[in-house]
Amino acid sequence: MRVLAFLDGTLADPDKAHIRIDDLGIVRGDGVFETILISNGRPRELGPHLDRLARSARLLDLPEPDRPAWERVVRTVIDNWQGSDEFALKLVMTRGIEGDPEGKPTTFAVGMEVDEKAKRARVEGIAAITLDRGIDCDLVDRAPWLLLGAKTLSYALNMAAVREAARRGASDVIFTANDGSVLEGPTSNVIIARGRTLYTPPPTIGILKGTTQGDVFRAAERAGWTTKVEPLRADELASADGLFLASSVRKVTRVHTLDGIVLPDATEIHTELARIYESQYE
Amino acid sequence: MRVLAFLDGTLADPDKAHIRIDDLGIVRGDGVFETILISNGRPRELGPHLDRLARSARLLDLPEPDRPAWERVVRTVIDNWQGSDEFALKLVMTRGIEGDPEGKPTTFAVGMEVDEKAKRARVEGIAAITLDRGIDCDLVDRAPWLLLGAKTLSYALNMAAVREAARRGASDVIFTANDGSVLEGPTSNVIIARGRTLYTPPPTIGILKGTTQGDVFRAAERAGWTTKVEPLRADELASADGLFLASSVRKVTRVHTLDGIVLPDATEIHTELARIYESQYE
Repeated sequence: MRVLAFLDGTLADPDKAHIRIDDLGIVRGDGVFETILISNGRPRELGPHLDRLARSARLLDLPEPDRPAWERVVRTVIDNWQGSDEFALKLVMTRGIEGDPEGKPTTFAVGMEVDEKAKRARVEGIAAITLDRGIDCDLVDRAPWLLLGAKTLSYALNMAAVREAARRGASDVIFTANDGSVLEGPTSNVIIARGRTLYTPPPTIGILKGTTQGDVFRAAERAGWTTKVEPLRADELASADGLFLASSVRKVTRVHTLDGIVLPDATEIHTELARIYESQYE
Repeated sequence: MRVLAFLDGTLADPDKAHIRIDDLGIVRGDGVFETILISNGRPRELGPHLDRLARSARLLDLPEPDRPAWERVVRTVIDNWQGSDEFALKLVMTRGIEGDPEGKPTTFAVGMEVDEKAKRARVEGIAAITLDRGIDCDLVDRAPWLLLGAKTLSYALNMAAVREAARRGASDVIFTANDGSVLEGPTSNVIIARGRTLYTPPPTIGILKGTTQGDVFRAAERAGWTTKVEPLRADELASADGLFLASSVRKVTRVHTLDGIVLPDATEIHTELARIYESQYE
């Protein structure tokens, strides 16, 4: 089951071709995207996702996304969805056709089933590896043209990192900076638990502001946890009481093995966080 | 005038949609490409371009490109071209449709007119700026998952760098590494002339091996120049006798202004190099 709608609300067949070969989304990976979890007809964290889409667009000098139109198209996809109760909704905005004098972006939203691997990861946890991202934490300010902190369609390196994880018997990655700071996953944010406190690194070091991570933090605070957004060192990951990757589709996924080392059992913490997070949507 | 052909030799209308919204080329910038200059029905440096396509594919764990098929499709586009004597031919290979169990790449070749801006740049030269690429020169070996040295479809940052140049009144960029080494342009290689010697930085520092640069160097050697592939420092650029950006479409383009400073007049050197380069194809 998939539902494809363009930003003007037109529905289209996702199995047919709709993109030209000279769309800058394909020839240059030049565009931005968001992936939103829809559960029981309700988008999770739609506001933060649209905020981030707008921020990414701004960093790429793309036109400001038409927020009411995106809100409407999200609703259109949801209204036409007839698959599982929970599904992933991807919003895509490319720079449009190369050389188009009007510079009209290509814009669409597509609803897709959550893949089985992601569902299994939510329950069973995953093995992850740390990988050098080769950057300094101040690079985002020093060199904004590198688009750190923008969620662009240029994800080839993120995908290559995940393949490197697979080669090493793992399924996900935590990127680290030159100074040993924890950055983010290729498609997730990092959260650690220490006692009754949750930690995540700050977006100011050149990573995406986490939508699911933010949602988990707010829910945890309401449930009596303390939350801190502050730099983390890679060598703190293995010694934490719990290590998690947060993303819209995988929710809070427990990392049970890091760089081949089995981590202390964080099943209980994960169960609690997953319950706290989920209870907001019941 | 444009000619589009898929790798199987089928011709198609480039103004129609041929790509699905779930092609990994668009949703992840996950694929590789080459741009080849065709002049008078003859592709320039086809062998090195196909070598580099294969190398990029290998770095991305894509299937080995079918070289005879690519050679045939290049010929198909050339045979169907009815535009200017000189045109740009882009080869694109994406990872194909997301979740496709066969993992069949999307592959096409498209011939396009060389844009007027590039033609003007060949004659008039350009202003460029140096921009921090935020990486170390040994990163390519240390972190192959970053895909440095692969020509991928994930070019959003390269395009952002060119927009930054425009904001600073220039039209192109020379990326520099953390140690002040000269890397490459977003879509070109850097060449400097000092006396009768041409210099370009080595691919081992994490940049693309230049096809046009290689061609220019071979032609220059035959004409009595010495050529050296060795690290260059950014502070050497302005003091060289000539600074050039080499790319298939723009050929050898003279940089007349760097970071706002007008460089010594290298018109004569440029004229000589352009003549040497071009004379191979006469």
